[in-house]
This record gives sequence, C-alpha cells and structure tokens, in this order.
Amino acid sequence: ATGHGSEAAKPATLFDAEVARATAFVDDMMRAGVNVPMPKDPGGGYTHEQHKKNYKAMVEAGELYRLNGDAKYAGFVRDMLLAYADLYPKLGPHPARSNQQYGRLFWQNLNDAVWLVNSIQAYDNIRASLNDKDRKKIDILFRSAAEFMSVESVKTFDRIHNHATWSTAGVGMTGYVLGDKNLVDKALLGSKKDGKAGFLRQMDQLFSPDGYYAEGPYYQRYALWPFIVFADAIDKNDPSQKIFERRDAILLKAMNTAIHLTYKGRFFPFNDAIKDKSLNTEEMYQGVAIAYAKTKNPQLLSIAQYQRRVALSAAGRAVADGIAQGLSQPFPFQSMLLRDGPSGDDGAVAILRHGDSDTGQALVAKNSSQGMGHGHFDKLSWQFYDNGQEVVTDYGAARFLNVVAKDGGKYLPENESWAKQSIAHNVLVVDEKSHFDGDVKIADTLPPKQIAYQAGDDFSYSIGQINTAYEGVGMTRNMAMVSIEGLKHPIIVDVMRVTSAAPHQYDMPLHYQGHITRIGPQLSSNVETRPVLGKDNGYQHIWVDATAQPVSQNAFITWQLDNRFYTWRWAPFAGSEMILAEIGANDPMFNLRREPIMIQRAKGAGNAIFAGILESHGKYDGAAEQTIASDSQIKSMKIVNGNGADVMVIETLNGVRVAIGFAHNEQADMEHSVDIDGQLVKWTGPAARIKL
Amino acid sequence: ATGHGSEAAKPATLFDAEVARATAFVDDMMRAGVNVPMPKDPGGGYTHEQHKKNYKAMVEAGELYRLNGDAKYAGFVRDMLLAYADLYPKLGPHPARSNQQYGRLFWQNLNDAVWLVNSIQAYDNIRASLNDKDRKKIDILFRSAAEFMSVESVKTFDRIHNHATWSTAGVGMTGYVLGDKNLVDKALLGSKKDGKAGFLRQMDQLFSPDGYYAEGPYYQRYALWPFIVFADAIDKNDPSQKIFERRDAILLKAMNTAIHLTYKGRFFPFNDAIKDKSLNTEEMYQGVAIAYAKTKNPQLLSIAQYQRRVALSAAGRAVADGIAQGLSQPFPFQSMLLRDGPSGDDGAVAILRHGDSDTGQALVAKNSSQGMGHGHFDKLSWQFYDNGQEVVTDYGAARFLNVVAKDGGKYLPENESWAKQSIAHNVLVVDEKSHFDGDVKIADTLPPKQIAYQAGDDFSYSIGQINTAYEGVGMTRNMAMVSIEGLKHPIIVDVMRVTSAAPHQYDMPLHYQGHITRIGPQLSSNVETRPVLGKDNGYQHIWVDATAQPVSQNAFITWQLDNRFYTWRWAPFAGSEMILAEIGANDPMFNLRREPIMIQRAKGAGNAIFAGILESHGKYDGAAEQTIASDSQIKSMKIVNGNGADVMVIETLNGVRVAIGFAHNEQADMEHSVDIDGQLVKWTGPAARIKL
Ligand SMILES: [Zn+2]
Ligand SMILES: [Zn+2]
Repeated sequence: ATGHGSEAAKPATLFDAEVARATAFVDDMMRAGVNVPMPKDPGGGYTHEQHKKNYKAMVEAGELYRLNGDAKYAGFVRDMLLAYADLYPKLGPHPARSNQQYGRLFWQNLNDAVWLVNSIQAYDNIRASLNDKDRKKIDILFRSAAEFMSVESVKTFDRIHNHATWSTAGVGMTGYVLGDKNLVDKALLGSKKDGKAGFLRQMDQLFSPDGYYAEGPYYQRYALWPFIVFADAIDKNDPSQKIFERRDAILLKAMNTAIHLTYKGRFFPFNDAIKDKSLNTEEMYQGVAIAYAKTKNPQLLSIAQYQRRVALSAAGRAVADGIAQGLSQPFPFQSMLLRDGPSGDDGAVAILRHGDSDTGQALVAKNSSQGMGHGHFDKLSWQFYDNGQEVVTDYGAARFLNVVAKDGGKYLPENESWAKQSIAHNVLVVDEKSHFDGDVKIADTLPPKQIAYQAGDDFSYSIGQINTAYEGVGMTRNMAMVSIEGLKHPIIVDVMRVTSAAPHQYDMPLHYQGHITRIGPQLSSNVETRPVLGKDNGYQHIWVDATAQPVSQNAFITWQLDNRFYTWRWAPFAGSEMILAEIGANDPMFNLRREPIMIQRAKGAGNAIFAGILESHGKYDGAAEQTIASDSQIKSMKIVNGNGADVMVIETLNGVRVAIGFAHNEQADMEHSVDIDGQLVKWTGPAARIKL
Repeated sequence: ATGHGSEAAKPATLFDAEVARATAFVDDMMRAGVNVPMPKDPGGGYTHEQHKKNYKAMVEAGELYRLNGDAKYAGFVRDMLLAYADLYPKLGPHPARSNQQYGRLFWQNLNDAVWLVNSIQAYDNIRASLNDKDRKKIDILFRSAAEFMSVESVKTFDRIHNHATWSTAGVGMTGYVLGDKNLVDKALLGSKKDGKAGFLRQMDQLFSPDGYYAEGPYYQRYALWPFIVFADAIDKNDPSQKIFERRDAILLKAMNTAIHLTYKGRFFPFNDAIKDKSLNTEEMYQGVAIAYAKTKNPQLLSIAQYQRRVALSAAGRAVADGIAQGLSQPFPFQSMLLRDGPSGDDGAVAILRHGDSDTGQALVAKNSSQGMGHGHFDKLSWQFYDNGQEVVTDYGAARFLNVVAKDGGKYLPENESWAKQSIAHNVLVVDEKSHFDGDVKIADTLPPKQIAYQAGDDFSYSIGQINTAYEGVGMTRNMAMVSIEGLKHPIIVDVMRVTSAAPHQYDMPLHYQGHITRIGPQLSSNVETRPVLGKDNGYQHIWVDATAQPVSQNAFITWQLDNRFYTWRWAPFAGSEMILAEIGANDPMFNLRREPIMIQRAKGAGNAIFAGILESHGKYDGAAEQTIASDSQIKSMKIVNGNGADVMVIETLNGVRVAIGFAHNEQADMEHSVDIDGQLVKWTGPAARIKL
C-alpha cells in the first residue's frame, strides 16, 4: 500500500507521453497476437470491442512506424489487415444488426465507417513497405470496404448527416491511398458525383455560419472527427481544394465553436448527450492538433494542456512542442451568440459568461432548432453553470454508453418517454403536452427565432421566441445575466412572456442539482405516499413530493450545491401552484437518474408572464466550519407590465434596487418608458439594466 | 474571462503561502477594524461568525507578530482583546443558548472554550509587548474566561469528553500564560485536582491503546486539536511532564491513527460525522506540524503535501522546509486493527486495505463500541471504498454544518429518526427495531467483541461478534478481502452467522452509491405509488421501489459508480425477499439525502447465515467510448455449513474456484474440515482462503 504524494517521473513532453502510451498499448496488442474474430456481438459485446481495439491498435502502430521506422509495427498492421482481407469476403450483414443501416464488422454501419477511417490511416503509413502480393490483397480489402460503404450502404453514404461524414471520409481517404479518383469524387460530391450529397455538401449544410452543428455540442464533437481528419487528408492530397478555407474556414470555426460549447471542459449536454463527454476525447485531440497545425493559434495549446493529451501525429507533436516552448495562451471563453442553420437563421444558442470557464458563471439560452432525430422538445430552454457545477440542468440522454445490461448501450425507452419530452427541460409546457406534440418532423421545420442578443460587463441578455411549439401560443423568453452592486455573483433573470387567446394549463419546470435548504411557502407534503404527476409525455415519470400556493413574498426555494447556495425566486400568479418533485416514477428498470424538479403551475391562464431570478450566494466551508450567506441576499423581486414592455424590479437586502426592462419590440432604436412606483424608467432598445 | 491553463506564480514553500494567506486575511480584518459585537445569534448567525473570525484573526496576527515583529499585528491583537475585556464583564449566559452547556460569547460552551484556546495563544505571543495597564486589563479578561470555564461551567470542565478537552486546554494554557499554577493544575487534574477529571484523565480514558478515539474518526479529528495544542503547551512549559511520552506516546499514536482512519483523505464517516471532513482542516495542519516537530516522521510530510497547507507556526515552517528538502515519504496506509476502549477490549475497528488510499480498496469493519451520544446503532457495520469512491456507505449525520435554514447547523430531527437507527446501516436489524432498542445508555455498556483479525496479501479478514444487541440473538460477522486469480480487484466477503432460539424477522440492508444497471431477480415494481416500508426506527423514511423473491442463481444486483461496476451477490434463504428502496419518505423538509438501499428480508427465521460478496469489476471509459466487463465476472457463490464452520465457495466465469472458511471457534490452532461437493476442505484457525 502506498500513500499520498508519490509521483512518477514525467516524460519530457505530452507527445513523449503519447508515444509511450501508444507503444505500451500496441506492444500489448502485439503480444496478444492478431485476433480478428467473426463478427457476432452488438455494442459492448466481445467481437464489437475486439474490432474496435484492432483499429485503434492499427492506427497507432501505423503512426509508430511512421515515427520510428520500426518494421515490427508495419508488420503488425500488415498481418492484421491480411487477416481482415481473409475475413471480409465471408461477411454479409452483421448478425446483430437492428436496422437497415447495418455494418459488416459491426452491428451498425457507422462503426464500419469508423473502422475504415482508422484502418485506412494505418494502411497509408505502411503501404509503401509491403510487397506486391500483400499490397494487392489489402488493396482489395479496402476497395471492398469502400464499395460496401458507397454502394451497398449508399443510403447512409448520401445523407446529410454525421454518419455520412464518417462514411464519405472513409471512402475518400481510401480513394487517396489507392489513387482512385472515382472514390474521392464520390466522397466529395456524393454517390452521383453531383454535389447534392457528399462531404462538401455536408460541410455546407451541417454547420451554421458560426460553426454550430445542428445536432448540438455532443454530436458536434463527434461529427468533427471525420470532418477534420478527412479535410486534413484532402488538404495534403489536393491542396488546391483549399478545404480549410472553404465557407470562411468553417471547419476551423466549428472546431473553435465546439470548445466554446463547454463548461469546465464538458460539453453542454443538450439533445441526446451523455454528460461525461469532455474535451478529453480522441476526436478533440485530433481536432486541436490539426487546427493548431493550420492556424498556430496559441489558445489551442491551453486546451491541450487541459486535455493533458495530444494526438499521436506530426500535428500532435507540434502541439506538445508549442506547450513545451511556453507558447500557450488562455482560451478566450466569453459570451457569444451561435446562430443555427446553414444560413444562420434557424434560431441560435446564446452563451452568456462571467468569469472563467471552470469556476465562473455560464448561462446557456438554447433557442436553436430541433436538430433532427437526436433533438429534444426543449424550445427556449436554458441551463446554468457556476462554481464548476451544472446548477440548472439538462437531463441529457437516457443511455449508458456500451453498458451491456442497459440494452447494450443503446438509447433506452426512457430517452423517448422522459429525456426528449418538454417537461424534462426548463421550458414552458402547455396542457401537459410536449412541444409540437412530440412530432420531430414538424419540429424540424419550425425553429425558434433569436430576437436579440447583447453581451456587456454587468448586463448581458438573449431574447428567443417561438410561436409554433403550441397552436395559438406565443412564447418570448428574455434571459439575462445581471451584476448587482453588493452581490458577489451576477444573477440570472428569466422573463418569459406567453400570449394566448385561449386558456391553458402552464407548467414551468426548473431542473436543478443540489439539496434543498429552505423553502419559502408552506408545503402540503406527500410524505407517506407519493402520487405520480401525470400519465404521459414525461409526466408519468414524476413523483410529487409536495405542493404549495406561494405568494410574492415567499415564492422561493434555496438549495446547496457543493460549497455554494442558490435561490430561485419567482413572481407567482394568483392561484398558481408550486410542485416539488423528483424523477423516477414508472421506471421499473432504474434507467433514470433520480433528480429534483420544481414546477410552477398555472391553470386556466392565457396571456402570462413567468418571471424568475436565480441567485448564487454564500459559501459553505466544511474545512473551516464556516458558512456564510446561506440564505438569499435579495429582499424582493417583482414584475411590472408597462406599455409594450415588462420591467423586473429587484431589491437586495442591502437596499440596492435595479430594474431590468424587456421591450416587446426588438428594434434597437425604439424608446421605452415604464412607471415603477411613480418613478419613470426609460431605455432604448430591446433590453436594459437601470439602476434605481 | 480567462481560460484553462493559466497558473499564478507559486510561493516558494507551503509556509510562505501560509504567511501570505494569513497576512491577507489579517490585513483585511485590520482594515475592517475591531468589531466585537454583543453576543446574540446562534451558530451560523452574524455575531457567532464574527466572534469566530475574531479569534482566527487574533491567533494569526499573534503568529505574524512573533514571526516578523511588526508591531501593528501586536497592536491589533491588543485592541481586540481590550474590546473583549470591555465586553466580557457585561455578559451572562448567551441569549441563544439551547441547553445547560451554554457559553457567554457563543450559544454553546464549546465555542467559548475554542475561543479561549485560540485567543490565549494570540495573547501569549503579544503579552510581553504590552504596557502594564493593558496587560492587567487583558489578564483579567482571561482570568474571567478561565473562571467561567472551570467554575461556572465546571460540569462541562470535569467531563471525560472532547468538550472538556477544549475547556481544560483553554484553562490550562491560560494558566501557563498568566503564570497561575492553580489553573494549570485544575486543567491537568480536574476542578478538584484529584486526577479523576482533567486533561490527563482524558488522555487516559478517551483513547484506546491503539490511539482510537471512542466517538469515531470525525470526532477524533476534532478532539485531537485541543489535545495536541495543549500538550504542546505543556511540553514547552513543563517538559518534565513528558506529556508526549505518556501512555506509550498516546497522543502521537492517536494522530497517526486519525490519518489511518481516512480514504482519499476523508474520514470514515461513521457515527455523527459530516462526510466532507477531510485531512484538510486546521486541526490536522496543527496536528501534523506538532507531531512532525516531535517525531520528524517523514511520512507526515506527504500528508502535508496532500493538505497543501501547513500550520502557521514554527512547527509548520519545519514541515514546509522538510517538504522543500525532499524528505517526504509516502504515508503507509495499510490494513490494521484499531482496538477500542481505554484498555483495548471494547471491540475494534478493522481496516482491510489493498492498493493505495486514493484509488485502492478499503473495507472498514466497525466492531467498536457505541461511542456515547454521537454513536449510532450500527453494531458490526461495514463500509467499502474503491476507486476513490465510497461504494458501500454509512449515512453519517443528518446535519448541515452552520446552515441557518437547517436549524442553524444543529443535528436535525432526522439524525435521530434516520441516521442513528440500525436500518440506516449495513447491519442486521431484528424485528424492525434498532440495536439495544435504540437506548444509548445500554448500548454504551455493551460493546461488540473483535474475535479475530488477520491481514495478508491475498486474504485479510476480521471477525466481530455481539450477542447483546437484541435479546436472545447472537451475531458473528466474518468479513474478508479476498484476491481471486483472474479478477482484477479483490472481492469483499461477508458471512454473518445469526443464532436465535426464537423466530424473528431479519432485515439485512446494503447501503450503496451508484446507478443500478442489472438486477438478477424478476421484480415486482411499485412504479405508480411507492409504499413506505414501516412506521418507526428509521423504517418510516424508506420508500419501497420494488420487491423480488430471488433464488441462488439470480440473487444479485449490479450498479455503476463513476467508471467502475459493482455486483453484490448473496445466498438467499428460501422464502426470503429482496427489497429495493430509497430514503426520503416522511421527510417534509428535505433534510435527508435521497440514497438507494437494497434489503434482504427473511421472516420467521431463527438460526441463519447471511452470506454475500461484493465484486468491483469492469471499466467505463466515456472518453474512449469503451466499456468492459460491465457484468459480474463471477459465475456462482454458495455457502456450505460444516461441523463448527461455514465455507463460502466462489466460482468465477473463468472457472477459478476458491473456498473461504470461517470457523465458529476462533482458536488459532484448531483444525477444521468441511466437505465441499465431495472434496474435503481443511484449514487451521478462525478463517482461511483455500484454492479449490
Ligand atoms: Zn434535453
Ligand atoms: Zn451511522
């Protein structure tokens, strides 16, 4: 048994460490011998994992050979590829396939494409070392694999979708290695070579002008891998394409944007996202390396320092050298608006930040489009990060990656029944139905609008709008990050204006992490039996712990998360209800995490304003046994409706009063004035912070 | 906004950092001016926190003055003590007191004692710098405070309890500073100076010969502070006492033992413990420094490296210098038995370890005594740590330190109704009642017995026994850590033998952390309404999610925690039930954390064997998207009852078979043999691991 404080000697640079790691791994694999089993198992199963290990070993062995010329590594790749060449002709559709997009080596076509992208890189590195016989045999393997991708699987190949990016990347890179222009052209322009499909079309369609990928950060990270790797191959084989300059350098922009879509290194988990995905993934090592090689942007070096890894490639070595030379600069995490859609007009994601990306505040206002099949019914949703924690949360996906017991790692039934539903998000839910009544095809055609956005030192805001999520119901969500004198951290302001001629039931959930410490209103508690909130659309998964009828003075809850406290305070409607609840009902297989929710419910309402503020306050210091400001530092909050504008008035315990005005009209030069207790508050433009 | 990778320049040593930190804090306090408010608030309130800040500022200002002779620091301490001297005569019992052990400056006597221990140290450092008038006035303050402790609060002062340690330390240190032998003698020997109370008696009574403190690790940490600090003062003022050699150097031993009672730097949280308590507390900085000064043990330096802090004292400087000189050695975390009770015969805590203390395995078999008022009804309980996580858990205390909204940080009602109850622990619960029927006075007189203990490379075990927790029910718990060929980590074996002439209902709970991935038996689930398990003794807090009737082949559950999987597999009795449950019922104020439990329930049983194994397996690697061995690697487990012994037989998926024998008689030289499927398994002594 060893103790604290022991440290192993560190290799000289991150690249040395990478070579050491890869050498150990490949040597292990070589000792185990070439093992290319007949495909049989689904994700997480034995043959699946073995084939994954194989391509990882091949691509790294190929790099090691390129680096040090040691013939044993070339021989290992050769022997394994020869084994694949023997196996491949025997394969048909994978026995564990579950849909039409099947693979041969793997249950899903996507995995075969990833195999191809990796294996062809390995082959590229060793092909010149082979004798004619071996080379011919392996060429045939790759030609067959490319044909499987581009002919038998042409439906996948010709999609405008990240699976197709892997597929076209594999085929195109095979084309370069085999010197087969036909394969390259198909990859770039689609199977019909008409540019209506293929890699270039994907580049043009799948990213917004701000480098935002329609499926969201989790898939942006993943999709970037084949984009960047294939682009790198295109750039090397056909520099005249100027692929990295295409569309205003969209791929490099998308790489940067992916990094901006993180807090403490983790991707914002909206849509079908697994929460533990961070910048620490192979694709981000590759992405940082290739982007650095193209741009020499020293801010990327600090990302590699966070990753503590670099790509095993010439570009990765350059990153490690840059760090060793002290060239690194902090990555400029900051507030930004990321427009969605190929033309940038399908809504947007607004990121409002204060402080750094590890401990500071970040508000994500998600006013972007549905994002296809992995999208959630979460229009105008938001998340909030502070103090290294996800405070106001997005559930992400109901999925346990590659865990055999959890359907082999596939999306679980609860991904549909809970994770995608509107009530699982910080959004307005009307009449207990999800946005677009849960119809993804309709949702995909009706993105929200980003009405306004502005970032400043003590006041940043984003206004999103959607009038199509529910028939006859318009929603405009004004969100702001507001610094207030005497408060240590900026507060989050949320004012949602709902318009409807007909009366409805409105539910406004708040999904948060932490342990409740104080509850404003008197509770009516279900302590001996917890009813389920509803029957469908996610409501069937909600246990009701307690309800209450708050009034303005007591409409708040406070909770503790890590060493800080948070108070959510809202302006309750007359007759509205607060519901304290927890997820987990109707979940017999324990597929859901048990998480708390607060729901503000108003029945029979038409036009309405939901107004709330989130305050980070105080400090819990267990070591020093000191706790300060564990209760809210705000005395009151109210909303005043004026002529064409709504004004929130906040007063702190110290007597500081601040008004936040949101106009109904977004014109930048329009003047507004609202009477606040006899004081006329004036501003120009869609939103303003006014000290009273 | 800044990014990752930026680092501030670091001071030369930990001590320099400490001086910088203290200087900043004290300078801040000096800028704010002397603020000695009239006592009013309970814990967490304004006056409470201000007086705490004051003594911290004074003690650090005193050290800064000693270090650099800057008169402004002496002046600050002087001015503050003069303000206290003005205030003190005006004080009576604190207005927010809640019991007889009140303070004057604080609601609790304990806080006043801590104030005294700190303030007298500050005074010691500056007293020589004062003019006669100020010195006289402040002498009177301390004399009054010491009198308050030793006369008005004599009941606390004369206890054998950590509150009394603070009290005697404060009075004794005051005696040394004022040159008052009477105060010193009272402190050492009790108010009557007869040695039946006082500091020396506390030293003899409160620690076992192995340096274990009866109230458990959380209070051991806290109690050590006045022990070590006062001992240091005794050693300096009266070296002839040889205080650090007393009772085989019990204080230094206790300091070492406290460190051993941690995993990943956090104290094992049994009894009334708050879980975030780690080695990173002021008392442990002081303890490490004083112990290092006495022993020069280089292993303590690695603890200081973990803490990244040192005491602001000459001893703290020596620690920092030792680290800077590269003298640090790893602290030898290892398996050990810590006997409980002044003579070492009141049971014990057995710690079985494998690997290091940050990522390896640690099994804690808690066969120690009740530990007075902060003890829990948790006889023969256990906890398990692995991979940096608390896997099989102890709830600790239901308390939010200094959080105003949670009863000002006091123990919450749920500490009695849940945290102390037997069902809240990994112990046998008979007929839904807690051990000793929840009577702490009886519990305190009836400790368990540590029957046997042995630590080895691939087999370590502990056997505990108690026959008095329930009338007519004997319990002997055999726990072992067993390495098995082909399994990556050792498994935990738990065989509890219960004897009873009468039939009972037995509940054997398993409290764990993680997300269930696989459940062996077919469930009967309460998905639409969750019943509460019982009415009293903690059962009223348990929601029942599901029940099942397992048979031997399917009696297991698997869960994921962080990046590893755990399977608990047990030998079910015929007709027994599995209950999957969660805490949180009858908790209207949300005072409890919501945590999962699995309960094995047998009705109408008399003599019985509860046998289970806990297996750590597999790996979840989200970055590499690779999951291996997420399901159990064990094929079967059964228990065979022989003549005077029980044998567990484990077979892995790879076909490795191991038997673990536990004899009913603990004699070291007694031979045992049991027939396992026709194969005679033999061993000598209380327990053995036999490869089949
Ligand atoms: Zn979502
Ligand atoms: Zn306990």
